[in-house]
Parts: sequence; C-alpha cells; structure tokens
Amino acid sequence: MADKVTIADVARVAGVSRQTVSNVLNTPDVVREETRRRVLDVVGELGYRVNRAARQMRTGRSQLIAIRIDPDRDGINGSVLDRFLHGLTDSAARAGYRVLLYTADDDRSEVATFEDLLGAYEPDGFVLTGTHHRDPRASWLLDKGVPFVTFGRPWGEEATTRHPWVDVDGSAGTAAATRHLLDAGHTHIGFLGWPAGSGVGDDRRAGWVRALAGAGVDPTGLSRATSDAVADGEAAARDLIDSDPGVTALVCVSDSLAVGALHAARSPGLAWREEDTRPDLPIAVIGFDDTPVAKAVGLTSLSQPLKEAAANCVTLLARILEGTETARASAASPAHVLLEPSLVIRQSA
Amino acid sequence: MADKVTIADVARVAGVSRQTVSNVLNTPDVVREETRRRVLDVVGELGYRVNRAARQMRTGRSQLIAIRIDPDRDGINGSVLDRFLHGLTDSAARAGYRVLLYTADDDRSEVATFEDLLGAYEPDGFVLTGTHHRDPRASWLLDKGVPFVTFGRPWGEEATTRHPWVDVDGSAGTAAATRHLLDAGHTHIGFLGWPAGSGVGDDRRAGWVRALAGAGVDPTGLSRATSDAVADGEAAARDLIDSDPGVTALVCVSDSLAVGALHAARSPGLAWREEDTRPDLPIAVIGFDDTPVAKAVGLTSLSQPLKEAAANCVTLLARILEGTETARASAASPAHVLLEPSLVIRQSA
Repeated sequence: MADKVTIADVARVAGVSRQTVSNVLNTPDVVREETRRRVLDVVGELGYRVNRAARQMRTGRSQLIAIRIDPDRDGINGSVLDRFLHGLTDSAARAGYRVLLYTADDDRSEVATFEDLLGAYEPDGFVLTGTHHRDPRASWLLDKGVPFVTFGRPWGEEATTRHPWVDVDGSAGTAAATRHLLDAGHTHIGFLGWPAGSGVGDDRRAGWVRALAGAGVDPTGLSRATSDAVADGEAAARDLIDSDPGVTALVCVSDSLAVGALHAARSPGLAWREEDTRPDLPIAVIGFDDTPVAKAVGLTSLSQPLKEAAANCVTLLARILEGTETARASAASPAHVLLEPSLVIRQSA
Repeated sequence: MADKVTIADVARVAGVSRQTVSNVLNTPDVVREETRRRVLDVVGELGYRVNRAARQMRTGRSQLIAIRIDPDRDGINGSVLDRFLHGLTDSAARAGYRVLLYTADDDRSEVATFEDLLGAYEPDGFVLTGTHHRDPRASWLLDKGVPFVTFGRPWGEEATTRHPWVDVDGSAGTAAATRHLLDAGHTHIGFLGWPAGSGVGDDRRAGWVRALAGAGVDPTGLSRATSDAVADGEAAARDLIDSDPGVTALVCVSDSLAVGALHAARSPGLAWREEDTRPDLPIAVIGFDDTPVAKAVGLTSLSQPLKEAAANCVTLLARILEGTETARASAASPAHVLLEPSLVIRQSA
C-alpha cells in the first residue's frame, strides 16, 4: 500500500517550498499563475488529497454530524436507536453530510467528548438522543452556540423553547393501544411501567390514563418494574396480576417488559403461530417499540417511525447549518416535530 | 447561537492578512514571534477552531475510520453488525480514532462512495464488512493503496494473502453445536442453511459435516431456505422433517431460520420458561448469532465475540496507520485473527 502523500512530497516534486504549496491550497491568489499550475499538477499526479482539509480551512465547515452510540446492551429495546442511526446515516448522506460516531458513559463524559470532538473533528452539529430531565448536554451546546437537534423532546420546562427537536408521541401510542384493548371488550387494563421520573416512561403512562379516562374507566393496576430487564417485567407483571386478579390486559412501556409479562401470563407457552388467529389467551399484552423480538414472539406492539424521525432531525439541523433558519429565529421559536407511533397488531392482543 | 469564526475574522481582529493567519497555523516558523503571539491570542479569544483542519493539513491524517452501515433490515440477525459497530466505536476511541459512517446499496455504490469519502473526508482507513466471493471492494482499496481491514475473511483464494482481516470461525461454532447434540444422544441431526455459494453459509455448513464425520455419522438432512426470513426457515424445516421423519435435531445457519424451525417443530408453543429445564421437545434446535430474539424465545445459539472482533480490527488497522506494520510487510503476509464463537445453551437444545 502506498504511503500517504504529504504536503512535503508535493513541495519536493514541484520544486517549491511547503509554504508555497500551502499558499496554493489555501490562498491561491497570492501565488503566481505558473507556480500555481505546477503545484496543482503535482497535487493531481501524486494524488495528494486536499479537498477535505482545504475546504474546511476555507469554509469552516466539516459536513460532519456527530451522534453518540451507546455501549452494546443486552436489551431488547436497544435496537431502536440502532435503527434510528441507520436512518440518520442515510438521510445525512442525501443532505451532503456524514455521520461521526462517539461513545460516552454518562452526561458528564458526553459533554467532555463534545469539547474533544469540536477541537479535533469540528462537527458542524450534533444529534442528541436520550433526552431526560435536567439534561446538562443541551445547555452546554446552547451556551457554546453549537448547532444541534435532539431526538427526544426536552423534558425540562424551561428548555422547551430553546432548541429544535424531533420526538415520537409516546402517550398517543399507549392511548391507541389502550383503546384497542377497550374496543376488544377489556375493562381491566393494567400498565407495566418504568420507575417514575423518566420523561419517556411517564409520558407513555399518561396515554394509558388518558384513554381509560376517555372511556370512563378508572386507571387501576399500575406496576413498575425496577429495570427494563425481562425478568423484572415478569416480576412486576406477577405483582400486578396477584394484586388485581381481574386484570385481563396489560399495556407495557417496552417490548422487554412485555416479554416478561408474557412469561408471567402464559406459562408454559409464550408465543403464537400466525395461524392462531384467536388463541385462548388469559391476558392480552401490548409492548412498545416493535422490536424483532416482538415480531418473533407474536407480540402486538407500537412502532416508532424511526426513519421519518431521523430524516426530520437532519432537515432541522441542515436548516440551521445552511442558514435558512437563522440561529436567532431558531432560539426564539425552535422548530419541532412530534410523530405518531402506529400499533402493529399480532397474536398477543 | 454564534456564527462560526472564520480565518477572515481572526485576520481582521488581529490586524494582519489572512495569509499571515494561515502561516501562523500551518507554518508558524515563517512568522515573527510577536505576530504569531498576537494571532494565536485572537484565535483563542474568538474560539477559532483550527486543530482538526490544521493538523490534517500538516500531517495528512484525519484520525477517521470509515465503515458502512447497512439499510435497516427487518431481520433478526441484522443486530450483529450493529453490535460490532458499538464495539468498533469504543475501541477506535481508545486508539485515538473516530468512526465515520456511510451507506451503500451494493459493492459498486460502495466503491463509488470510497472515492467520494477519500476526496471529501480523507478517512485514514476503512473497515469492510460482509466480505464475499469476487468482492471488488478489497481489490479497489488495494489498488489505491488505502489501508483497510475486513471483518470477515477474504473468501476468494487469491485474496487471502493480501490484506489483514478478522473473522469468527463459523465452522468451529457449528461443529461445537453438532457435538453438543451428539453428546445429548441425537444421531439424526439436520442442517438448515442458506443457498450454496455464501462463504459464511458454506463455512457454517462445513462445521456440521466435520463434526458428524468425526463421530462416524453420515451428514444427511440438509435443507436450504431461499432467504434468511423466518417464514422461509419454517418452510425449509418442514421440508426437511417431512423428507426425513427421523430427524431429532437441527443446527441452523442463523437465529432467524432457527426461529422458523421452532415454528415448524413445536406448534403451538414456541418458547420455554427458564424453569423448564427438560421440557418434552420433539426436535432440538440451535441457532447462530445469539440475538436478543434467541434470548427471548429460549433458543440455544452460537455467540460471536463481537467486541473482541471489533477491537482486533482497530488494532490491525492502527498498526498499519501508525507504521508499526509497514505496508510492504503487510502485503507480503497480512495479519489475521480468527476468533471462536461460543455456544450459549438455553431451552431449545
């Protein structure tokens, strides 16, 4: 493999100083025509790749959008952000950007990584995921004037009007799931949730409460799993069923907890064949995120429009970067997009 | 949000020409000490970000590793490359690199994307995935002298000695799965595979053949699904069971086909609770890739050491980029790493 051609190689072959090569690439108008041609010929001959760095020096733009990728988790719902990333890479490419990945263990290390990336790679903007209450990341980027968009709304009150965001309407999803169960004749519908305080989790619970209230049904039967693990979902579902034996259906905050609920409700058989259009199910279960696991075990679940969410993130960010939306207008009234999830009906409900 | 500071802003505030600013950043030794200090003070004051582009101009290195991300597929086994990507991003960061993503629909568009990326972003190297027979991507990168490593061995004969690669030993995995079934007393063990011609698929089938031969058992009962979809796996498994009713166990080339095999073998109940240590199973099934679906439905499966594979890819690539392995030595006898998958035993076998 050939070694990378450096500016020094170009200078040597063209018989000029490195300074002259740099001038040709950065400020060509200060170099004599003849010299410029000679240097550019050598650049082409040697295959010295200069577009990226030279353009960036000239325009201050890297055409990079940075996003965090979480450590590999053993979870069922972790695939959601992976699917979002596929969509983001695709949409970004269409808009002339590439996606730069970084990792971070928590908010603090993510903010430190912002600094590192801005110094070393100069991404034009960021897409933040996993927004939550008292999120220091958005404030940091706002303070520094770095363009960004979040996938996930800002859950803190005061932040809601300060940056553009894209989100999926979780409560609309769980409300639709609850109405689907009400329509099927269920009247005792429980909710299997995460611990209180999660913006996403509380919002999904609210949709269940709202749909029951709309039907004049009391929202009894709430159980919170201590984590998003299948085993914790199973334990929380058992608690709920034990404490309220009349429960005939469960809306779950995630597919992972829903799989646990299936374990609790339907031992020993857990899944259904597509032919079993109306098997004898003791408890109906609906999950959230329409993961491959939901499909494999016949779990009815809510599907997030991830490709559309990713495309909207790129559009909002590109608008800021390309100046069609000014920074000032954006700060006064940032754009946001709230998308509806759709219910994918399978055998479990 | 503040607009991005340009070299012209620095020049104006420092009261020097743009050329002088460029000199300070690129060839500081040609600038008078006093001027240099003044310009650098203004650079710091205005927050002009120069590290990335300036360093790249100077060193010809971008510290970027590029990798393709496939379009979101509705599959079960697609999560494998996502998990590899998590590991790659993490290992790359530790080695001082960031990961740049791109998409491509096929080999031809991927090669076109190589050119675009090398012109526009100058990644230092590539990690290729999905290697296959007559793969034009490796040849293109070899011709251009671009450093790269593949996750997946080169399946074409002549290419095996020309670039570094990391792979997981699929045939060792299916051999271990087959021996596990032989040890449990199975003597009629079928294989559910992909159409012939896939390097990965043929290699996984070879492990099953080898383990049976080692035990003096004839490798009967091979069935090939027309795609990696669950429904095609179910159809292929039914064909196999119908044509050889004596089959008591199936080794499958993927979790996706294995889930189909479970549908075929065990209607109506498909999955097991962890308490059911020895349920009455008509046909034992083993999958490949240990996906979240395998875990959710109790499928015994082969787990690829993806984090280790990603770390090895970064190590091999960094060795070339950092010159501890010269291009010439690398071409003569490229490094490669073949890792062993491990069998994760659950309820299905």
